[in-house]
Amino acid sequence: MNVPPKVIRIGQAVLCVTDLQASRHFYVDLLGLNILHESAEALYLRAVEDREWSLKLELAPTPGVRHIGFKAGSDLDLDRIAALADREGLPHRWDTETDRPRMLRIQDPFGFPIVFYYQSVKYPWLLQRFDLHRGAGIQRVDHCNLFTTDVAAMTRWYIDNLGFRLTEYSEDDSHRLWASWLQNKGHAHDFALTNGKGPKLHHFAYWMPDAMRISQVCDILAGANEEFRIERGPGRHGITNAFFLYLRDPDGHRIELYTGDYLTVDPDFEPIRWNVNDARRQQMWGGIAPRSWFLEGSAVEAFDGGWMRQEETALAGLPAYVR
Amino acid sequence: MNVPPKVIRIGQAVLCVTDLQASRHFYVDLLGLNILHESAEALYLRAVEDREWSLKLELAPTPGVRHIGFKAGSDLDLDRIAALADREGLPHRWDTETDRPRMLRIQDPFGFPIVFYYQSVKYPWLLQRFDLHRGAGIQRVDHCNLFTTDVAAMTRWYIDNLGFRLTEYSEDDSHRLWASWLQNKGHAHDFALTNGKGPKLHHFAYWMPDAMRISQVCDILAGANEEFRIERGPGRHGITNAFFLYLRDPDGHRIELYTGDYLTVDPDFEPIRWNVNDARRQQMWGGIAPRSWFLEGSAVEAFDGGWMRQEETALAGLPAYVR
Amino acid sequence: MNVPPKVIRIGQAVLCVTDLQASRHFYVDLLGLNILHESAEALYLRAVEDREWSLKLELAPTPGVRHIGFKAGSDLDLDRIAALADREGLPHRWDTETDRPRMLRIQDPFGFPIVFYYQSVKYPWLLQRFDLHRGAGIQRVDHCNLFTTDVAAMTRWYIDNLGFRLTEYSEDDSHRLWASWLQNKGHAHDFALTNGKGPKLHHFAYWMPDAMRISQVCDILAGANEEFRIERGPGRHGITNAFFLYLRDPDGHRIELYTGDYLTVDPDFEPIRWNVNDARRQQMWGGIAPRSWFLEGSAVEAFDGGWMRQEETALAGLPAYVR
Amino acid sequence: MNVPPKVIRIGQAVLCVTDLQASRHFYVDLLGLNILHESAEALYLRAVEDREWSLKLELAPTPGVRHIGFKAGSDLDLDRIAALADREGLPHRWDTETDRPRMLRIQDPFGFPIVFYYQSVKYPWLLQRFDLHRGAGIQRVDHCNLFTTDVAAMTRWYIDNLGFRLTEYSEDDSHRLWASWLQNKGHAHDFALTNGKGPKLHHFAYWMPDAMRISQVCDILAGANEEFRIERGPGRHGITNAFFLYLRDPDGHRIELYTGDYLTVDPDFEPIRWNVNDARRQQMWGGIAPRSWFLEGSAVEAFDGGWMRQEETALAGLPAYVR
Repeated sequence: MNVPPKVIRIGQAVLCVTDLQASRHFYVDLLGLNILHESAEALYLRAVEDREWSLKLELAPTPGVRHIGFKAGSDLDLDRIAALADREGLPHRWDTETDRPRMLRIQDPFGFPIVFYYQSVKYPWLLQRFDLHRGAGIQRVDHCNLFTTDVAAMTRWYIDNLGFRLTEYSEDDSHRLWASWLQNKGHAHDFALTNGKGPKLHHFAYWMPDAMRISQVCDILAGANEEFRIERGPGRHGITNAFFLYLRDPDGHRIELYTGDYLTVDPDFEPIRWNVNDARRQQMWGGIAPRSWFLEGSAVEAFDGGWMRQEETALAGLPAYVR
Repeated sequence: MNVPPKVIRIGQAVLCVTDLQASRHFYVDLLGLNILHESAEALYLRAVEDREWSLKLELAPTPGVRHIGFKAGSDLDLDRIAALADREGLPHRWDTETDRPRMLRIQDPFGFPIVFYYQSVKYPWLLQRFDLHRGAGIQRVDHCNLFTTDVAAMTRWYIDNLGFRLTEYSEDDSHRLWASWLQNKGHAHDFALTNGKGPKLHHFAYWMPDAMRISQVCDILAGANEEFRIERGPGRHGITNAFFLYLRDPDGHRIELYTGDYLTVDPDFEPIRWNVNDARRQQMWGGIAPRSWFLEGSAVEAFDGGWMRQEETALAGLPAYVR
Repeated sequence: MNVPPKVIRIGQAVLCVTDLQASRHFYVDLLGLNILHESAEALYLRAVEDREWSLKLELAPTPGVRHIGFKAGSDLDLDRIAALADREGLPHRWDTETDRPRMLRIQDPFGFPIVFYYQSVKYPWLLQRFDLHRGAGIQRVDHCNLFTTDVAAMTRWYIDNLGFRLTEYSEDDSHRLWASWLQNKGHAHDFALTNGKGPKLHHFAYWMPDAMRISQVCDILAGANEEFRIERGPGRHGITNAFFLYLRDPDGHRIELYTGDYLTVDPDFEPIRWNVNDARRQQMWGGIAPRSWFLEGSAVEAFDGGWMRQEETALAGLPAYVR
Repeated sequence: MNVPPKVIRIGQAVLCVTDLQASRHFYVDLLGLNILHESAEALYLRAVEDREWSLKLELAPTPGVRHIGFKAGSDLDLDRIAALADREGLPHRWDTETDRPRMLRIQDPFGFPIVFYYQSVKYPWLLQRFDLHRGAGIQRVDHCNLFTTDVAAMTRWYIDNLGFRLTEYSEDDSHRLWASWLQNKGHAHDFALTNGKGPKLHHFAYWMPDAMRISQVCDILAGANEEFRIERGPGRHGITNAFFLYLRDPDGHRIELYTGDYLTVDPDFEPIRWNVNDARRQQMWGGIAPRSWFLEGSAVEAFDGGWMRQEETALAGLPAYVR
């Protein structure tokens, strides 16, 4: 039997930012993420449950996404993913990062820069150092969401080759797949795919211990006169049952604070289907969402540098409930 | 010395509704307000801290506001208000209601049907019968908000004649008053006045014990597929620091669920000034609000029956942040 | 008519502490109270809604309570209280404090050092500077609780002479008053009286915006390995419906964090009676409370310095539910 | 390689109760669990996220635990567990239950009646029917905790034979294991083992979406005058970081409501060690716990009926912090 290499969960993102002090103010002072390492060129951040860094902000001339990273099941799994990349003719290379001595970077068939790692230096978590929690106490890295022009093919590829499981999806009346939610860690998702001009990152998300702390983030931003960083929410997605809040960082990267999902560990879990025209899938509380939320995202790095050229999707048109 | 009659707090509203079963579903089944009395023509409701009914829904051919009611300091205060009405030539009459044997109804100089009462039959509260709380456990009547064409004159009249105190207000660069918040009970308001076509009721509000329960109301409405009843929020007003949610009942009456304000009992409390063009006064979390919220309201009953004719305000124009 | 001088609300406490750095760590670093003034001898603190300092910690050789302070309705009310003190032969003097140019200090007939003030320098509040809230965001000064040997006489004196109103009380089967809750500000209490060896301070309390933040204080103390500062709670008092938490500061002063009470502004509000043997009055969630909570308190300063000698109460015996 | 049969998560408990109406009042009316099936002899309950029943209450002459049940990875895994039972000489038989056509029941080497199942009839969940949530909205089955005389051997057996992973453990200075927490579902535990007279069930637990809802359960019980059902909490365990509440049902079965744990999906997750004498492991907020919590539990059914005889543990003695 052909068991795919084991991928455990999403683990990290590396975002290029153009003003590290502005980013530090947003992520550390306002959101309360915790600094593990800091230099003139980069900040390595983590939430209170994270034992490793989960977000690197790297100073760069232009904003974008250096890569998204998944934790693999072992170093052997990394080798198997490298073999997969060989077989499929995907650009790939071995790389290192602070605390991560062995990372495999591939460009997936859909243009995304994906890193896999197993080894990672661990630090005592802050989960029970409640006295050190700042801001709203962001708890752990949860997932990312990617814009792609071919949700169906990309969903299939990650299921077949890396063992991800589908939890929810939206399709139109012609059964064309518009979006999918995929996971390995036993919750609603490690990453989601959204139909749109891509490849782009829609958002990177952290899990919060309860809904009230998500409202507290709005208050903190308002107190600092930075309410313009709130793009959407708080609200409740039908899909994943997420209590959500979307922020835009100083470079426009979208960050979601998220809670409210459910377990998906049962082997006979049946993916939940939504009609793409059912507005409840994206906001159970009704109302309209800003156009920017449906269209904008962060460029992702090409394998040899520079940003991937983005292509329009064939499944064009925005749902009626977009503002 | 000319001490005005004592008015303690807002106490009640009587809303005309066109389908009592639809209203019952909304207020009782979904919001969880508690029934004190029920007949084929009316529902008398209260929140868990209320010892008296605070909201009467009365079956009528057309929706509207029968009256807004304030609790006076004593029966003597009612007589003094009657004398005031005589002096000012305001239409007034004595009236009775279930549990309220002696109510004075006036039409104030701005066209609003206002009732004052002191005596009221009290019932054991439900505050500590947590096992009987339903929905999100709405706690107590808090305030109402009225559209009037002359906020300045109406504010002055209630301060001079009924002893209300100003807590917050918004004005434009020419120091013209656009809205005011007035109280006697020691919190941010018993009622507020908003510039607009009037007289109309903007909303009637209940106080909630915390912000999470306000989000829970959104979830409950969503669960029942009645998310379209959510008009605005949740969010945070700059004015009164309210964590707010606005709903529209089946007849279009607007109900606010509210928490987060502060004490105003100090005699040297200085009213807080906001510029009407400062969007933070109405939504500290940024974003836009629906046009309906700024324009729509409930007709109020004329003294001799029928609904008051509404007049346009001279302070026309909507702020830029209206959707 | 003999209208008593107007007292608005509790406003402050001055606590003598023996190690200002230890107190600063507890009140500022852990509880998150905000510093208004700081010197080598004293800290002036406030909660986020307070526009004035509400707690002064004063370096002294022995811990104790310098005084409890109430905000009066005007400077004239202070003069009227001075006249009352003259009439009653109570020790009294005029005093000043930082931000409080005119304070009247009396020793009440029951041995408590009570200060009244009207004028107070006000500072912009922090209520809407959510970005500056620390810890659990303590919101405002709420009340104090005093041990006295004669609850009945002291309750009567404050009602008759200073216009306080009774909200709740406990008595035994012989109708002897064991404890009383008194207010002027329109909530459950400004101060409470507890039968016991006295005069002593049982606790000084701050109001919290919701119950979850009270649990958060427990977590913060636990995170800092200072869980031994938690004496009792969280729990729910039957009396006042308080969601409560009791802490002991480094000098043993008891601080309550409190939420969940109700409005008492109605003139016909009827005081709520509890039987002293009904355990639900002190803990609706059942269980036992530590003996220290029922017996220990802070010494209060005598008018001419030193600490008041404490006398045993005649109503001796602890309820059965004490641990 | 010898890969153990796959066990996914805890799935169910069957508790014998002596008065089904009393149990119904507690679990359904007060806790708000949802009825899937009901007869004169049994109630099948589930939380709002559960798609299957997770708790069966079965009328019986004596209270006890019919069995604890785990969801296996497939029907094949059931066969492999049956083979394991054969090899080990463990009493076992095939059984059926409502909605569960194929259950394997074993008596494990430590005397516990354990059921494994894969197939289960699924029902639409109530997670997003917020309008139907009652009480505090209990979310999903989470774990159980068992008293055994040999924690070390039993921990080893479940790791070696059924693939469970250790997340936390407590041991004394001599490195003798006192308690262990074991999981397969990616959270802190599916079951825990506690040193004590056994075999007995210590508690069966449900996961709650936030800490405030756990406090709400205390209020609901208090409102119904059933606060005596609260045995311990709310509080915060150091182990698993659980925000906990322990209740005793009408037959004395202990139910935990629980939130606050963390993900354990990383293959290199290192189990967390606690010293059994560190009181913080069991209550980070300090204070003492009732003796009953450390000693009492529910009898478990013997393979051929009747209750297992309980034996004393060799690791005797209670920690100093027990009340």
